[in-house]
Amino acid sequence: MMRFNYKLILSILGLLLTINGVAMLLALPFSLYFNEDWRPIVYSSAITIFAGLPVWLLFSKNTKRDLKRRDGYLVVTLGWIVMSFFGTLPFILSGVIPGFTDAFFETISGFTTTGASVLNDIEAAPRGILVWRSLTQWIGGMGIIVLAVAILPILGIGGMQLFGAESPGISPDKLKPRIKDTAKRLWVIYVGLTVLEAILLMFGGMTFFDAINHSLTTMATGGFSTKNASIAYYTSPYIQYVITFFMVLAGTSFTLTYFMLKRQFQKVLSNEEFIVFLSFLFLITIILTGFVHFSSNQSFETSFRETLFQVVSVVTTTGFVSEDYTAWTPLITMAFFALMFIGGSAGSTAGGIKVVRHIILFKNSFLEMKRQLHPSAVIPVRLNSKAINQDVTFNVLAFIIIYFLIFSLGSIVMAWVGMDFESALGSVATSLGNIGPGIGSVGPVNNFHDVPDAGKWVLSFLMLLGRLELFTVLILFTPYYWKQN
Amino acid sequence: MMRFNYKLILSILGLLLTINGVAMLLALPFSLYFNEDWRPIVYSSAITIFAGLPVWLLFSKNTKRDLKRRDGYLVVTLGWIVMSFFGTLPFILSGVIPGFTDAFFETISGFTTTGASVLNDIEAAPRGILVWRSLTQWIGGMGIIVLAVAILPILGIGGMQLFGAESPGISPDKLKPRIKDTAKRLWVIYVGLTVLEAILLMFGGMTFFDAINHSLTTMATGGFSTKNASIAYYTSPYIQYVITFFMVLAGTSFTLTYFMLKRQFQKVLSNEEFIVFLSFLFLITIILTGFVHFSSNQSFETSFRETLFQVVSVVTTTGFVSEDYTAWTPLITMAFFALMFIGGSAGSTAGGIKVVRHIILFKNSFLEMKRQLHPSAVIPVRLNSKAINQDVTFNVLAFIIIYFLIFSLGSIVMAWVGMDFESALGSVATSLGNIGPGIGSVGPVNNFHDVPDAGKWVLSFLMLLGRLELFTVLILFTPYYWKQN
Repeated sequence: MMRFNYKLILSILGLLLTINGVAMLLALPFSLYFNEDWRPIVYSSAITIFAGLPVWLLFSKNTKRDLKRRDGYLVVTLGWIVMSFFGTLPFILSGVIPGFTDAFFETISGFTTTGASVLNDIEAAPRGILVWRSLTQWIGGMGIIVLAVAILPILGIGGMQLFGAESPGISPDKLKPRIKDTAKRLWVIYVGLTVLEAILLMFGGMTFFDAINHSLTTMATGGFSTKNASIAYYTSPYIQYVITFFMVLAGTSFTLTYFMLKRQFQKVLSNEEFIVFLSFLFLITIILTGFVHFSSNQSFETSFRETLFQVVSVVTTTGFVSEDYTAWTPLITMAFFALMFIGGSAGSTAGGIKVVRHIILFKNSFLEMKRQLHPSAVIPVRLNSKAINQDVTFNVLAFIIIYFLIFSLGSIVMAWVGMDFESALGSVATSLGNIGPGIGSVGPVNNFHDVPDAGKWVLSFLMLLGRLELFTVLILFTPYYWKQN
Repeated sequence: MMRFNYKLILSILGLLLTINGVAMLLALPFSLYFNEDWRPIVYSSAITIFAGLPVWLLFSKNTKRDLKRRDGYLVVTLGWIVMSFFGTLPFILSGVIPGFTDAFFETISGFTTTGASVLNDIEAAPRGILVWRSLTQWIGGMGIIVLAVAILPILGIGGMQLFGAESPGISPDKLKPRIKDTAKRLWVIYVGLTVLEAILLMFGGMTFFDAINHSLTTMATGGFSTKNASIAYYTSPYIQYVITFFMVLAGTSFTLTYFMLKRQFQKVLSNEEFIVFLSFLFLITIILTGFVHFSSNQSFETSFRETLFQVVSVVTTTGFVSEDYTAWTPLITMAFFALMFIGGSAGSTAGGIKVVRHIILFKNSFLEMKRQLHPSAVIPVRLNSKAINQDVTFNVLAFIIIYFLIFSLGSIVMAWVGMDFESALGSVATSLGNIGPGIGSVGPVNNFHDVPDAGKWVLSFLMLLGRLELFTVLILFTPYYWKQN
């Protein structure tokens, strides 16, 4: 007999499904307003609630309500999978994405806030279904916030402890009571910013429908668009700047945004990750603007704006597209490929490696040389002026190496299913980093429709791996996890 | 005043140049025998000796003969650069490679045992010059053996300590007296195997000239060939198998070969790196043979032999080519690209990351998940059944991350100088890993002739970085190195 608290695990999964089913109904008003067939949404919702509610009610009774570390890994991984499984229903029942493989790819791309799509003609899909598509990302973003501030630090996922220590009050061993407090506070910010962005986009001339959809997927750093051309559809510089601003916010730790709103600017300015994140965006934009401007005949403002937009979009792992950056020069393609490995800030909705890990990585690389010159000295990495535990540094290094290991294996598998060199690397980098568009045949102006089915399953798994900070999922595949002790 | 022992540093550099100049004369008999212009070789030798000998004689008098750690990094890095600088002379004076950039690229590609070439028509070059070209690799290989067994462990370069501890008697603080003992023993093996291979190749029908050249560059895991088509020129399976066997030997720790020759097989069989190295070569060959055989209409033996040859050639970082593996399938191209990041064994003449580092990396990645499940336990990585110091593991992780960092930056720069995506990645991977051929426009059937000059300098630097295990060179660029204390 396993020592899992399987009752609690099942009740949480049931609850998640119930929430999922109720959330589907949020798409219904759009269906009705635009005179579309409302049945796919209502049926999907009913099926999902019908699957989730009884399980929730059945298992939540008389259950010990403390989730152990070991249960945590399982419930988080299964949660994302189960949500994605039932999330396919509106796509399948509406016939927008008839095949299960494609529908699952699109849905997990949503819930992991990736934004890679198989839809060839987005604008032909019913609006209600597109709202559900955007909602998968927004709900995924909500999940990520809970994960980052409350769950991952307890699961001991590297780099997140750093963030966890900063976030308002978390008890070290049990998740339950504090999740609500911490997450609720940040969710209010998340919802508020979503509404604010939608309003600002409508000021720029977007319809209510487009504004709300783009706002939902910006704040989740998701990147699903209601337009085939993504943001390139909009020629308004205002709209681009607004989205850029909110992408930066969405890629910033929500706890920091909370401090900003409380006017505790000292905490914000002394946060090394935030400063590096902003400086990096600024610096890379300036450098690349030069190259872009030189190789095009746009105005300087246009070059700057397009570059800024794309740099922010890729680094925050959003994946909106305002221009085909892979068509500029080989340097720009390579640079954007490299940017896929940055990731936003810890505690944001962004995926990828994350800025804080890169900071630790860089500092440690330098210090490693100092250690070689002074072999007997103990030289720890310092973050925010504090020495960090060597175990954390160790975990961060291991994380990054496993990330590249999975990237390598994934690329080989994608080449195996028949993708060319550039597209294989691009599809894996963008899936693992939860970005959206890759390079090559899955580049900014293409989509994932023509990726072979086997490849879609591989990429779906990579999205999940990346989104759950690798270890949460991988640990389930180790013997240590299943061993009784 | 710096606290370097600059007299000793200069005297070592002078000695190295003198050796370099004398070594050039080894090419002279071939020049004379084939009735070629002997003057480029004699002049080059004279200039090199003239530059080196006085410096050696002048500074070796009354010098404290203990090389400190800090001096070590400098003398090793400068040594390789100075050798490569003067090593260009035969190429330039003979007119075989008139430009300095090209000549330097070819020479440092030799001394770093890389084998990337700018020569479009190798067979048109005078034989004497080709012997010098092969000798640069062979001399480089000798240097690497000293480096691996005697110098790097003292400089504290990661992974090498592991090897260093195994190798016969090294005193921890001073290089001088023990270098000779340890290195001489292994050099005898190196020379012996070179002669043996040459004889075996002549049995297979190679001319004396071709046999000796290929033998020199095999044992150095260099890969320079005297044929434009590299080993693909030879249709004899015997020749391919002989070269394959010696590539495996050259990619194996020379200390292990020493133990083998002394019939201490227990030491060999209990060496984890060796076992993993062989198993890996075997396993990958079997898997890829399947794919190659399936996608071609060769006999099974041919598929196996070609695959084995190419896998061994890339993993041992030799870089001989028996067939254009990038023309097979996307999977095979991607697989060989990934193989460029393996590297041979520590203590061999092979470059790259090295198998032992991968072992530590893999074990640590698994154990990191165990550590997350048992946060308070101390769980060290074990190698050859012994727990290894956490500092070593740390250093290995840092090494691999810096390796990928440099790979990324290098690729961006190569894209900047105008190379396409695939070629940029391929040229950097192959240079940093000291392999030779890359993929794309610098693939197995192409060469580096058309790489822009700036790119050639970047790749030259990367070859040096990779060859000297990154830290030896990088440490010179840190402030810690130059600080008095």
